[in-house]
Amino acid sequence: MFEFAVEATHGAARAGRWTLPHGVVETPCFMPVGTQGTVRALSPRDLEAIGARIVLANTYHLFLRPGEETVAKLGGLHRFMGWPHPILTDSGGFQVFSLESLRRVSEEGVEFRSHIDGSARFLSPERAVEVQWTLGSDIAMAFDHVIPGQASREAAQDALDRTLRWLVRCKERFATLGQEAVSRQPSAISGALSDCGRPTADGPLADGPSQTLVPIIQGGTYADLRRASLEGILGAGDWDALAVGGLSVGESKAATFETLESLGPILPAGRPRYLMGVGFPEDVVGAIARGVDLADCVAPTRMGRNGAAFTDDGPVNIRNARHRDDPGPLDPGCDCETCTTFSRGYLRHLFAAEELLGLRLLSLHNVRYLIRLSARARAAIVDGSFEGWSREWLARYQAKEQA
Amino acid sequence: MFEFAVEATHGAARAGRWTLPHGVVETPCFMPVGTQGTVRALSPRDLEAIGARIVLANTYHLFLRPGEETVAKLGGLHRFMGWPHPILTDSGGFQVFSLESLRRVSEEGVEFRSHIDGSARFLSPERAVEVQWTLGSDIAMAFDHVIPGQASREAAQDALDRTLRWLVRCKERFATLGQEAVSRQPSAISGALSDCGRPTADGPLADGPSQTLVPIIQGGTYADLRRASLEGILGAGDWDALAVGGLSVGESKAATFETLESLGPILPAGRPRYLMGVGFPEDVVGAIARGVDLADCVAPTRMGRNGAAFTDDGPVNIRNARHRDDPGPLDPGCDCETCTTFSRGYLRHLFAAEELLGLRLLSLHNVRYLIRLSARARAAIVDGSFEGWSREWLARYQAKEQA
Repeated sequence: MFEFAVEATHGAARAGRWTLPHGVVETPCFMPVGTQGTVRALSPRDLEAIGARIVLANTYHLFLRPGEETVAKLGGLHRFMGWPHPILTDSGGFQVFSLESLRRVSEEGVEFRSHIDGSARFLSPERAVEVQWTLGSDIAMAFDHVIPGQASREAAQDALDRTLRWLVRCKERFATLGQEAVSRQPSAISGALSDCGRPTADGPLADGPSQTLVPIIQGGTYADLRRASLEGILGAGDWDALAVGGLSVGESKAATFETLESLGPILPAGRPRYLMGVGFPEDVVGAIARGVDLADCVAPTRMGRNGAAFTDDGPVNIRNARHRDDPGPLDPGCDCETCTTFSRGYLRHLFAAEELLGLRLLSLHNVRYLIRLSARARAAIVDGSFEGWSREWLARYQAKEQA
Repeated sequence: MFEFAVEATHGAARAGRWTLPHGVVETPCFMPVGTQGTVRALSPRDLEAIGARIVLANTYHLFLRPGEETVAKLGGLHRFMGWPHPILTDSGGFQVFSLESLRRVSEEGVEFRSHIDGSARFLSPERAVEVQWTLGSDIAMAFDHVIPGQASREAAQDALDRTLRWLVRCKERFATLGQEAVSRQPSAISGALSDCGRPTADGPLADGPSQTLVPIIQGGTYADLRRASLEGILGAGDWDALAVGGLSVGESKAATFETLESLGPILPAGRPRYLMGVGFPEDVVGAIARGVDLADCVAPTRMGRNGAAFTDDGPVNIRNARHRDDPGPLDPGCDCETCTTFSRGYLRHLFAAEELLGLRLLSLHNVRYLIRLSARARAAIVDGSFEGWSREWLARYQAKEQA
């Protein structure tokens, strides 16, 4: 369980397979984000139909509403969402540090006010791990201290030191939860707690641990701090995967890519690498070229709801008047329901008329675009054409400014 | 084409089959409403999956946006909506008469201001028929003068007289359009006008006329005026179907049912009867019991977006706190994606979190509920158990006040 097999490489790019309790994920892989336990405007069937095999859910949001205990009573996160495939939960770190004026950070954890009702809440390394354990995701993320992309060296050092200290606490709590589950396992467990002490109603694919804890490399845009963060993480345990956090948070794209390039050679080759919060097509391809195996972002659904669609010829704004009488598909190269059923003219009408179906159809296409883009990258890595493919893809993507 | 076969009756209730250019519709039948060319929050695939075989679209709305010529350029209404099955278009009469202060009625037609941009627009019997012809629906409705449910006898008489005079003009314009199409048919027709002069890109099922014009019986809640309206209509032509309009517009439910009962014996038995604007479960069953074959309403989608779901035990408000930890389905007797995939607790969460998927899932269920209700009524009519079935259904539906 949690084994990662690298099947092919091309330059720094990798094609792999990651075995998770609820299924196998082929990498490179784009993961759609279901912030509140639903990928906005899409159903689980939609996601299956467009080839999604793993989705994210957000600990901060589910902790506040409906609460992890409610999710557990409803059968765990997989049954709750109607998604029997792998799920990764973010730790909530990114969200609580985004609350700015509403939070107070201490060594113990983060006190914050709920954005929903203003109530005082608290997340710590231990609580973040407990919440994710109760939710029952396949992949839990360590609780990290996230800083803005332009943060000073001092702030970056401070945050990475705290993130490392918190990682040790996350690991200890995670180990305890696992031991408690194992000791309970032979006995009859009533109610929702039926699966290794965790309420994943659909059950894991095989025996063994049903969740893994993944640490997050911090250190801002400072290469030596990133290296120090990685060394600290590797010194703290043997991890099934490693995540790169604190990128795509305001720094330049060049800085993002430089950070990935500096980390690439020193990351363990046999572990999947997850770049957090990246999901524009050119960034996904650039990340894959630099050895990233998994990425996630709300961009495809958020852009879709705004009427922007990804295509190989660059983004298309479907609200533009030039699409009004256009009987052609949104993206002639795409196999999704949106592109095979509807015209650009109809999609534009849906946005002009503020119809809900428009939000869904463009979200569906954009997620499909990124999943297919990852699959095309994978095929190119496997057959040794990735460098040329990615160069040509990027040249075409950036060639014309569509509107 | 447009043949209607009554296969069974039970009391006044009828089970039939109506052959339309884009498919056969089994009656009694509930028709979901796609006001702006989309059944709100649902896709054509959703509608097919839940057994919808005919949908409505709205002439007033499509006339204003995107305009019928744009729909024609995009391949006609069927291709525009991605819906290859039958479509009925309302004439726009109901909408323009609802505009109240924004409209001026004359014998020629109705001048009104667009609710979108305030521009001055005009619909007349001829224009309403032309717009529907250009859209390419299977069933076009005559342009009628609609009055409120509590209208005086004088107002009802005036409106029905005008509706009859307008019907003659609708019929003449419709006949001219048909003749023009036939005379053009042998020659090569360019562009979108490829199907009997009409742009239905998916093409009709068979040769013959591809659209029928249906008159609307008016007369308010006055039985003698309804009879006069029907006699005038039957005197004006041979119609494939007859619609009952001007009900469900503010009058009592008893008055609606009395009107249907008074019309029943004098309506031609061999023609389908369409009751406009009725779509709450108890009204649908009551209408079927009184000989109605087709009904439409926005109720299932509008109620769904408000978190109200139809079940055999009465409406359920999914926002209610009692559903928070409920792992059971919304409606245990339902076979739709919503009820077979998700718990009440999850659906409540979607509404609490204001997630788009909630709007869709409850709309899907409610439309499925009415389609299944019509199919259950049909089966009961065929096997002779309709009276008992409908009595038991109504008793259970009204037994408890759910929340």
